Amino acid sequence: MSNTTLWLVIGLVCGIASLAVGLYYFFWVKKQDDGNARSREVAGWIRDGARAYLKKLYMALIIVAGAMAVILAVVYSIEGQRGVPTALCFLFGACCSAVAGYLGMEVAVLANVRSAVAASKDLNTAFNVAFKAGAVMGFAVVGVATIGMCLIYLISGDAQLVLAYSLGCSSLALLAKAGGGIYTKTADIAADLVGKVEVGIPEDDPRNPAVVADNVGDNVGDVAGMGADIFDSYVASAVAAMLLGAAFGTSADPVISANAPLYTVLPLILCALGILASLVGVYFVRVGENGKPGKALNMGTYITCGIFVVLMAVVILLIPGINNGLIWAILAGTAVGVVIGQTTEFFTSDEYKPVQLTAEYSGSGAAITIISGMSYGLISIVPSIVGIVIAMMVAYFVVGGGDLGLYGIAIAAVGMLATSGMIVSSDAYGPIVDNARGIAEMSGMDEEVIDRADVLDSAGNTAKAITKGFSIAAAALTVLGLFVAFVSEIDAATEAGFLFSEISLMDPIVLAGIFLGSMCPPLFSALTMLSVTENAFKMIEYIRGVFKKNPKILEGKATPDYSECVSLAADGALKSLVLPAIIAIVFPLIVGFIFGPKGLTGFLGGAIVTGVLFALFMSNAGGLWDNAKKYVEAGHFGGKGSEAHKAAVIGDTVGDPFKDTAGPSLNTLITVMSLVASTFAPVIAIWHLF
Amino acid sequence: MSNTTLWLVIGLVCGIASLAVGLYYFFWVKKQDDGNARSREVAGWIRDGARAYLKKLYMALIIVAGAMAVILAVVYSIEGQRGVPTALCFLFGACCSAVAGYLGMEVAVLANVRSAVAASKDLNTAFNVAFKAGAVMGFAVVGVATIGMCLIYLISGDAQLVLAYSLGCSSLALLAKAGGGIYTKTADIAADLVGKVEVGIPEDDPRNPAVVADNVGDNVGDVAGMGADIFDSYVASAVAAMLLGAAFGTSADPVISANAPLYTVLPLILCALGILASLVGVYFVRVGENGKPGKALNMGTYITCGIFVVLMAVVILLIPGINNGLIWAILAGTAVGVVIGQTTEFFTSDEYKPVQLTAEYSGSGAAITIISGMSYGLISIVPSIVGIVIAMMVAYFVVGGGDLGLYGIAIAAVGMLATSGMIVSSDAYGPIVDNARGIAEMSGMDEEVIDRADVLDSAGNTAKAITKGFSIAAAALTVLGLFVAFVSEIDAATEAGFLFSEISLMDPIVLAGIFLGSMCPPLFSALTMLSVTENAFKMIEYIRGVFKKNPKILEGKATPDYSECVSLAADGALKSLVLPAIIAIVFPLIVGFIFGPKGLTGFLGGAIVTGVLFALFMSNAGGLWDNAKKYVEAGHFGGKGSEAHKAAVIGDTVGDPFKDTAGPSLNTLITVMSLVASTFAPVIAIWHLF
Repeated sequence: MSNTTLWLVIGLVCGIASLAVGLYYFFWVKKQDDGNARSREVAGWIRDGARAYLKKLYMALIIVAGAMAVILAVVYSIEGQRGVPTALCFLFGACCSAVAGYLGMEVAVLANVRSAVAASKDLNTAFNVAFKAGAVMGFAVVGVATIGMCLIYLISGDAQLVLAYSLGCSSLALLAKAGGGIYTKTADIAADLVGKVEVGIPEDDPRNPAVVADNVGDNVGDVAGMGADIFDSYVASAVAAMLLGAAFGTSADPVISANAPLYTVLPLILCALGILASLVGVYFVRVGENGKPGKALNMGTYITCGIFVVLMAVVILLIPGINNGLIWAILAGTAVGVVIGQTTEFFTSDEYKPVQLTAEYSGSGAAITIISGMSYGLISIVPSIVGIVIAMMVAYFVVGGGDLGLYGIAIAAVGMLATSGMIVSSDAYGPIVDNARGIAEMSGMDEEVIDRADVLDSAGNTAKAITKGFSIAAAALTVLGLFVAFVSEIDAATEAGFLFSEISLMDPIVLAGIFLGSMCPPLFSALTMLSVTENAFKMIEYIRGVFKKNPKILEGKATPDYSECVSLAADGALKSLVLPAIIAIVFPLIVGFIFGPKGLTGFLGGAIVTGVLFALFMSNAGGLWDNAKKYVEAGHFGGKGSEAHKAAVIGDTVGDPFKDTAGPSLNTLITVMSLVASTFAPVIAIWHLF
Repeated sequence: MSNTTLWLVIGLVCGIASLAVGLYYFFWVKKQDDGNARSREVAGWIRDGARAYLKKLYMALIIVAGAMAVILAVVYSIEGQRGVPTALCFLFGACCSAVAGYLGMEVAVLANVRSAVAASKDLNTAFNVAFKAGAVMGFAVVGVATIGMCLIYLISGDAQLVLAYSLGCSSLALLAKAGGGIYTKTADIAADLVGKVEVGIPEDDPRNPAVVADNVGDNVGDVAGMGADIFDSYVASAVAAMLLGAAFGTSADPVISANAPLYTVLPLILCALGILASLVGVYFVRVGENGKPGKALNMGTYITCGIFVVLMAVVILLIPGINNGLIWAILAGTAVGVVIGQTTEFFTSDEYKPVQLTAEYSGSGAAITIISGMSYGLISIVPSIVGIVIAMMVAYFVVGGGDLGLYGIAIAAVGMLATSGMIVSSDAYGPIVDNARGIAEMSGMDEEVIDRADVLDSAGNTAKAITKGFSIAAAALTVLGLFVAFVSEIDAATEAGFLFSEISLMDPIVLAGIFLGSMCPPLFSALTMLSVTENAFKMIEYIRGVFKKNPKILEGKATPDYSECVSLAADGALKSLVLPAIIAIVFPLIVGFIFGPKGLTGFLGGAIVTGVLFALFMSNAGGLWDNAKKYVEAGHFGGKGSEAHKAAVIGDTVGDPFKDTAGPSLNTLITVMSLVASTFAPVIAIWHLF
């Protein structure tokens, strides 16, 4: 058994351990008390709605994935490459991603009611249920992903096949993320605009026909969507580094080329170490009597990161032949991630000027709220972009630049995402608690229970600030890694070699590609947001009709039919996925076959730049509006019901699809585009017009 | 006298003729009747306000321009280059731009009242006054610009000095454009939010303390700002082509290098031909009894373009040694400009779905209006980007690619902007009529006069759709030309030669530059928009205070003090220019001195891409919201006073700084950045960190 094989087996074992822990937590959560008949009924509506959506989504995915698998098999076979294995690995990736998403959501719809019931006893147990449910998602994601990658590479020894696996994961992630985002905001906006604004009933009120759809949305958007998103970044970052490592085999530098196999499996080693660190870290997430849940979550994250850094440094130092500078590359990425998290906090927390000023300006009308929030959102990209540039430069130069430097950029992303097990756990915790609050309200639990759920909820929001900065920086480095990997794929595929020097910024074909690529993320954002407005508009019309037809519902004497809004949201979201999917998968191919490798390189470059830009802008502007509204609601500038509040609510509603639909899907979009380009690189290198 | 000298003299003569025609119209307008004491009084307020702002602006500019001139002189002298001439040409450019802007605004504040008075007699005379006033601006701009460029090149024979002249023009244009944009929207938003929304008095009502500031804003923003903007694109496009032409002197191709002097003056030849065509075209802008003003304006534009195209083709065919393919490059640019104009129309006219749907969605609240308008605004960039890419590819490949191809891209922009004399005339007409309407309302003229002013106004809007597409496509090609010119400057400045192949998309330094550049246009937009909200917020507080302190004003029994809002808007706008100016001038230098030529090239590339993107998005979204409001006001979805109308008004207010402050300044921003980079290229090539 060679050294690399040993490492792959270790990776596989860690992956299996991770999945096993996830399953253990799953059954632990399932065993908890799910309360009385009423809470079970309410939870049942949400669970059925979520399952129904997932079923429809997966049916659609089977068609898309099947079609793509056939295309891959045919195209690759024509070119004399391994067509069928490629297609199979692609399907395997899609299935793995689906399984992780399914597990995560299934546990979420079990945990929401259980967490609410536990909250009627004490905070501690409620926290435990929600967090462990989040951990199911976290460990399932990293476990399944690591198993899949190690297995494929162990059997085939071909990083290309891991690339196909990654494309499978990401294609599914894109649809899950964008679809979930459209679903959740359609229901949220419609429920709020008719419920809170027009007829004046509170959030999560059972008289609102859209209330179940709204709560289903939290699950399909925030839990399943987010899980798929991290799954996709996690695998993509590893595969980018693996491809670059494999390309070292032909390097002119004998030290590097001799160690190519080690560099190829290093990403998987880091994944394994990250799993070990997360398993220890989760153990430390405990809330004592009167303890603070936010602190507990942060403690878990810090411990996990600390352990990972130590393990990573030791392993890299001990493996002979691996450049030790990579330790600094990973640390630079991590440090920048923390800094970005802090600056994001500055722009979106109500303790600082941007949120406070936006809230104050709201007194002069919603237009000023919007302009102000948008402006701060645009400004907020500056520190993050500067941070990403610094991380990139450090990761590149710390190992001496050149090919190894490019590998350094990719490995920095892997290092940042290695601890995803812990990060997803504390991220998935948030929407579960949010849902618990909804169930408590709908099933008429005590005020005290709702208050406790609120405490748990706000802890989730605080923890998010850290993980957010992390995920932004990691995603940017991941796509940069993928970008470099794509060029190396093209380089390997063209007979004459696709020279570094050919993709010059002065070449009009490259420039054309950049322009065309740069318009894709804004177009994608617009289409998903427009879907939200169209679907919400339809749902609003429907709810108005319900209230008109049966006035007893508003008096609380009749129960509305919740299932109609649930299927309106689901069908609308799925139909709306067609165009975004075309942008992600078909556009790169069109550009590639027309403008060739040079144009496609420019295209990816353009898409990555505006993708990162719009993702930052939209997420931060949305977060800012959300907190400006909360700041007004806390009693500032007139408080609830004032003109400032009305304006702030409009800002918050505009921010909803920004931060929960378009913004977070953009990372996945550019990942999928890069993976499509890399996967088809061998074909595009041969067949193209210009 | 050599061939090129002859052409330069012809250019000079055409420039002088253009300026003479402008001055002739100026005195013609001044001679017209300016009505009774009341209209003279109202016009006087506006005139004084506009002059006061211009005075303050020019004082600030003297400081900025003086400082930059000193820096240029010192830096260039150290490097052994021609320091003093460079600084002098820079100052000459700033002065020329200031003179053209001053003339244009001076005639606008004379023409507004005269057009209003004329409208009390008949439509035809009113149209004539407004259009001729617009033509003063148009001919002053192209006349002064052409004189300046021909003179410098005639005396020095050095395209580098024309570059310094261009930087002078553009620096001033940026401040005039951004400052005017902030001024006009501060006053507009404050006047609307307090006047129309809070106390319910109509537009242009003399009881509103901000009404004069609002009308001053139309002049300083739309007339002076727009004139400076076109001035800047006009000169920049010519200088980009001149620099590339001059660089042909060292070309390996003997046919090209022999004709380098001709290629260098070709842009100036095109400017001269454009002036001739415009002089003829303006003659055809006539409205008969019952004639349509919109038709008259379009007729003038079509005739001008037609004549120019014929002259241009004949001259290029007749000059031996010039590649005839350039005719097609210019035609491609023009054709794409027309197409972009049409698609822009689709997204912003109330005859098509985007505006109508946004208006319909407004019934569900302002949040949906905003999301929908933003989404369509983002989608609207797609056809324009595709058009720009096509124009670029055609202009490049039609002359066989290579260096000549890059020159083709630059010359296509020159060809499109050559007819600016006519285009500015019909563009400046709009705000003058708008102002005439304001004066008619404020000085209590008949309803009939206001109706006629409305007819004239809507004609201006229709004409704009054509010129807008033109100016977008031309600006994009101009900055691409400047970008290429910059690389050729750097290439000439570095001893080893700055190779085409070094600015590879795969180089992390280039990538770092791209990321940093791409964030500048969004940051610039945010800062200018934020200035608008801050200043408007202050003005709103002030107006509320006035109404509170003196309730007689609202009853119409007392006249408010208009001067306070005028100086609030002026001081606010000027203070707000500091940061945007730093982005435009200091950022490229910082990036250049740290990351060197490679990083700076990436920086410019990134800024150009997002600059074009955001300019398109913001202009179109703003136009869409404006027309969605008008569509609702025309009686759809509940008409005036309905919920849909309230929401549409919020959309329109958000769109104001989009389309009149941030959006249109972005072209100038990226022009200035490119010019700064090119001007300092010889220095940066030698001194840089990486």
